[in-house]
Amino acid sequence: MDEFSFINSIKQSLYKQSSLVKGVGDDAAVFRQQTQDIVTAVDTFVENIHFTRQTMPPFYIGYRALVANISDIAAMGASPAFYLVSIIIPKTWTENECMEIFSGMKKVGKEYRMDLIGGDTVSGSELSISITVIGYVNRGQARYRSVAKDQDVVFVTGTLGDSRAGLHMLLNQGDYINESYFKERHQMPTPRIDFVNGLQQIPRMALNDISDGIANEATEIAEASEVDIHLVEEAIPLAESFDQFSDHLQEKWKYFGGEDFEILGTVPLKNWSHVQSVADRVGIQVTEIGKVVLPRKESGNVYLQKGNQVRPLTKNGYTHLT
Amino acid sequence: MDEFSFINSIKQSLYKQSSLVKGVGDDAAVFRQQTQDIVTAVDTFVENIHFTRQTMPPFYIGYRALVANISDIAAMGASPAFYLVSIIIPKTWTENECMEIFSGMKKVGKEYRMDLIGGDTVSGSELSISITVIGYVNRGQARYRSVAKDQDVVFVTGTLGDSRAGLHMLLNQGDYINESYFKERHQMPTPRIDFVNGLQQIPRMALNDISDGIANEATEIAEASEVDIHLVEEAIPLAESFDQFSDHLQEKWKYFGGEDFEILGTVPLKNWSHVQSVADRVGIQVTEIGKVVLPRKESGNVYLQKGNQVRPLTKNGYTHLT
Repeated sequence: MDEFSFINSIKQSLYKQSSLVKGVGDDAAVFRQQTQDIVTAVDTFVENIHFTRQTMPPFYIGYRALVANISDIAAMGASPAFYLVSIIIPKTWTENECMEIFSGMKKVGKEYRMDLIGGDTVSGSELSISITVIGYVNRGQARYRSVAKDQDVVFVTGTLGDSRAGLHMLLNQGDYINESYFKERHQMPTPRIDFVNGLQQIPRMALNDISDGIANEATEIAEASEVDIHLVEEAIPLAESFDQFSDHLQEKWKYFGGEDFEILGTVPLKNWSHVQSVADRVGIQVTEIGKVVLPRKESGNVYLQKGNQVRPLTKNGYTHLT
Repeated sequence: MDEFSFINSIKQSLYKQSSLVKGVGDDAAVFRQQTQDIVTAVDTFVENIHFTRQTMPPFYIGYRALVANISDIAAMGASPAFYLVSIIIPKTWTENECMEIFSGMKKVGKEYRMDLIGGDTVSGSELSISITVIGYVNRGQARYRSVAKDQDVVFVTGTLGDSRAGLHMLLNQGDYINESYFKERHQMPTPRIDFVNGLQQIPRMALNDISDGIANEATEIAEASEVDIHLVEEAIPLAESFDQFSDHLQEKWKYFGGEDFEILGTVPLKNWSHVQSVADRVGIQVTEIGKVVLPRKESGNVYLQKGNQVRPLTKNGYTHLT
């Protein structure tokens, strides 16, 4: 495939962001931002590690890769504006399949008014997509993990474990309930941009997106904020037909499944009703699943209450009774 | 290798850029820029395509990869400020080798006051480094390829073909003159940041960095500016001992060798002496190698004058007599 013609074929003819000065076509892109802070992150997806062609047609590979990056921007309380894509393409992939990957990204870009402002395509032995995303947030209002405080409400959007359940269905043919729902949650997840942007007037709020499972994300907030987090098993929101899977799989997926790209947050109790009303307004579910507490011993631990029992929930995927 | 401990090990303890609000450690980095435009580009380097372990020890792989990206920022007339690194690491690379790659990048970061503000490390089958670099330029003063005009002086910094000559020496043991000079030009090239920054008062100037050979870079300027470029073979600056190679290799390397990361530019004749004085001040060579001319037929062509003969110099690496 000719790299130059490929770049031209994915180049946007119109840009959506008025802060863009120069898009694709020179040594670098140029943009201007006088009033907001700029937020940026990078994420890489490698074939057979982060996805397989068996479970992800090329369109969805692109779609999901960009959503995963936007989700990081959402977790900063920011709005995405630009993305740059570096893609390594093996000979086994056709130009048409590569175009499909970019079509998936463009679909996401259109939904969230993002412009593709740079990138390169190189050949290699395994398909790899590295995306840098750039977003804006009101000055000084980026949402950090480190601001959770004792007695904050811990909440989560949507339902957990669905993406992992969808992957299971894609990998194991079977007779499932709501199969298309779960598969879509895996292949076309939704970044919670609208929800997060609706929360701007809340002065203090810790946010993380759920890319690696809630056990890991809650631990990151607890560690950064030097608190503990107490979660209640019965409160964890699950999709209606999630109980079609064994207790073992449910447990594994809802805490460690990851890639739901829902938002985990903590807010002062007085702001909790506002969070609920914003979720209502943007049409998503939000659930109180626990609270922030003072550290028992060393800070940074997550505890899970199941009935009367409380046990530590560790980020590496194992729970042990105490 | 544990991804988390690796990220911590490359995390900076101090940041140099005062515009940085939040570095590594949350879902994304945050920075603030009210007075300058922001410039960004991405570049990817894949083992056995862009480099081999045979010719590039890990430290130089990192060093050179970041320089290549900074060079794009220089070619925009900008100063680098931040970089994000996404690295795919195969099992055949040790943690120590990976640290060496980052040491090479850190060395460059230190020289140019850049902060590493994000990144991820994932496993894969071939080593690949994708770097996004972010820089600043005075508002409205980014240097585009598209502004060259008839009768502009065409200039180039340094000497051409040295990097390719160095690679040749690394690949073919032999008895060479100035071997360490040429090898260093390949392994530790210098981005022309200081030079470019000294040219800020020149109102109009087209710039490109020489990553793909001067034939290609000159064509890009000619195409973007809708002009032709006339180069003079005798004027092309070459290192003193470049003539130790055959005429065939010299010709190939100086026009198509690439990766010298020198700067090719065009300026109005009245600004040429200023360009020369800035080069003097920062201690580099700058040479007039031709001029911008009105298109002969369709615009976007580069012509090379050798003695009395003029022939087209095309970007894909071939010259044909006319």
